Order: sequence, then C-alpha cells, then structure tokens
Amino acid sequence: MSARLRAVVLLSGGLDSATTLALAMGTGFECYALSFDYGQRHRRELEAARAIAGALGAARHEVVTFDLRQFGGSALTADIAVPKDRARDDIAHGIPVTYVPARNTIFLSFALAWAEMLGSSDIYISVNSLDYSGYPDCRPEYIEAFERMANLATKAGVEGAQVLTIHTPLIRMTKAEIVETAVARDVPLALTWSCYEPQPDGAACGRCDSCQLRRRGFTEAGVDDPVRYA
Amino acid sequence: MSARLRAVVLLSGGLDSATTLALAMGTGFECYALSFDYGQRHRRELEAARAIAGALGAARHEVVTFDLRQFGGSALTADIAVPKDRARDDIAHGIPVTYVPARNTIFLSFALAWAEMLGSSDIYISVNSLDYSGYPDCRPEYIEAFERMANLATKAGVEGAQVLTIHTPLIRMTKAEIVETAVARDVPLALTWSCYEPQPDGAACGRCDSCQLRRRGFTEAGVDDPVRYA
Repeated sequence: MSARLRAVVLLSGGLDSATTLALAMGTGFECYALSFDYGQRHRRELEAARAIAGALGAARHEVVTFDLRQFGGSALTADIAVPKDRARDDIAHGIPVTYVPARNTIFLSFALAWAEMLGSSDIYISVNSLDYSGYPDCRPEYIEAFERMANLATKAGVEGAQVLTIHTPLIRMTKAEIVETAVARDVPLALTWSCYEPQPDGAACGRCDSCQLRRRGFTEAGVDDPVRYA
Repeated sequence: MSARLRAVVLLSGGLDSATTLALAMGTGFECYALSFDYGQRHRRELEAARAIAGALGAARHEVVTFDLRQFGGSALTADIAVPKDRARDDIAHGIPVTYVPARNTIFLSFALAWAEMLGSSDIYISVNSLDYSGYPDCRPEYIEAFERMANLATKAGVEGAQVLTIHTPLIRMTKAEIVETAVARDVPLALTWSCYEPQPDGAACGRCDSCQLRRRGFTEAGVDDPVRYA
C-alpha cells in the first residue's frame, strides 16, 4: 500500500486559501482542511470553507471553535467599524484595525497539533506578503520562525524522524497572479468569500480592504469575479 | 498614575503553575491568569485554577474553550489509559502517552493574543525541563524559539516598540525546589491539583506520573502535601 502523504491546509473560505488548497491537492497531498470559528463578525466564510473543501476533494474538513472576543479588540471580532474605500497605499502599508492579535500563530498552532496526530509533516497557509504587507504574521520571516519553533515543539522534532515544512505558495504572488492560479487550478471561484462585511441581502460589500484587493486582482487578471457585490 | 506592568500567566491549576503565578505576582506584575478547557479528561484542574487565581490575587482569570479531541489521540484527551506506577527513570525520559500534541504551542499562542490586547510584554509559563524531560515543548530551546517567533508575530514586533519575554522561572528547578518555593511564596497548596485521574471520591490517584512527581517533591522538601490521595 502506498499511502498518500498528508497535509494540513488552513482554509478560511477566501480566494487565497481556496487556491492554496488547490495547489496542495495538485502536489498530490491528501489534504486535511482546517477552519476556525473564533468569534469573527460573520460566519459566511465558514460556509464557504465547507463548500470549497468538498468541491476540491479534501479528505476531511474540521472547524475548531473558540472565542477570541474574550480578549477584546479588532474589527473582525469586536464592535469596531471595518474600514472602507481605503486607498491602495493605505491598504498595503501599516497595520489595519482588522488585524487580529496572534491569529495566524493560533491557527498554525492548531494545524501543528493536527499534523502531529495525522503523521503529517506539511502545513499549508495562504499568507501573502505583497498585496497585504500590513499584517506582521504574514511576513516570510515570521513563517520561518514559526517553522523553526514547530520543529522543536513536537515528538518528531525530538526523535529527529520528521521535519515540518510550512508551505506558503502564495507568499510572493500579486492578487492578479492568485486569480490566474485559481483559474488554472479550477478553484470554484463562485464558492469563495473574501468580504469582511457581508450585506443583509447576501452580497459582498465591495468596499472593505479585502473586497477591494480581490476586485482589483480579478480586474488585473482579466477574469470575471462571480461574487455578487452590493 | 503609575500603572503596574501586566503579565499573562498560564495557569493549569497544578502546583507548578500556581507557584509560577505567585512568583509573577511577587515580581510586581498585575497578573492575568489564563486556563484552557480543551477536552481534557477531567475539569477538576479548572476549578483549582479558578480558586488559585482568586487566592493569589490575579487581576482576571479567563478560561478559553476549544476541543482538542477533534484531532484524536493522547491520554489526556482520548480514551487511552493513563500510565501508573512508572519508575522514576521512565517518567523522566521518553515521551509519555499523556503528551498532547502542540499543547504548549497552542496555550502560548492564546497567551500571546491576550498579551497583545493588554499591552503586556510578559508571559509566564511553568514548564520544567528537569523532572519531566519527556515533553518536547518543555525544553528551553523550544521556549526560546517560541519567543523569537512571537516577537515577529505581533504589531509591537513590527513597530519595534515592545519585546515579548516568556518567563520560565521553574525551568531548572527540581520538584522539591518548586515545593519549597511554593511554601516560601504562600501558595495555597491545598487548592492545587496535579492528578491526571481524579478518583470518584475526589481524592488524587497517587499513582500517575504527575502524582508520583508531586509526592516525591513534597517528601524530598520535607513538606506535608495537603492533597488527599486514594
């Protein structure tokens, strides 16, 4: 029996993580998709994640639940207005109020736990340092430091049996390149959800940082975005 | 107004974390105690944590809930027998089945999130590399790697405003030294709970690795252990 190698893939339900899952699948990994219900403002993205995991053929999809609102702060989890219609330079630089403290560290920690249980030494995360430089935990040097820590944290690290790799296939891509990759890999674009503030009628707001980046990416790639905007 | 510096202290409810909280309080920090309800076999330790946080004067105590059983495995979270009556050498070496994958990484990640919200740059964790060398995520090199990663993960790391320190005051202490420190710092020993397998009548089992280490520590320190054993 030649079992396929397993990978844990963080899946938010957005375009980037869906594309990352498609890339991991394309590499031949049996993929375990992991999402989080952490008290974010809306659950729309979790429905998207579930649909995408199914459509792309993930072996399993788990949603880990906890509540980051216990600690307060951040536009995604508390009662702070999501910024809208910001200029491109403002989006690309500085740390936005939508930053959730230590979020990627928490997400990667759970991915690490699951990877260890699965005997997997591969984790995929869709961080991107180009279009969205404002988040400290999207930088390559952060990912490298997490990988180094993770290799000291686990049984395998002690026994020297296995070396954990954190894959970041999108880290240097522009949003347009991500759209092109998604199209080439048959990502079900209509299932992906990027908006921070879904409208009551189910449309994306079109004006938050995430919508703006997404729309510009589709425009620059010359691809129609199937998501409906307000 | 001279506000006291804040520290986040991981508090399991055991002797070690209670002693660590007492040391952090003694250093002058305003302490924010953090516990986890993660699907462990018993909740006795969470009651202990709450009582200890109150007795030692923590500013706040939060319990973050999630379920590690989703990922399967480990004697603390699944249906595997807790080992009993193991010899001292067996306890000190090798990775026990009670090891929970990436547990300290997950715990420290939440501590990091809370610390960032609180404007704190100090986290305390009661890892110990001497009495219990079997856990990969209790080793000093692991803690250093986490600290390095954490300093790249946060806003403060980007802005260069604040450097996070992970304090491990017990890391080189024997269990007897921890008992002596606890006594010197007026830790309410009767409130601490170490046993992996509480008995139906509320007694500690006395035979799991954790009970054995604790009892030997009290004996070597010449201190009476107020906990009742089966």
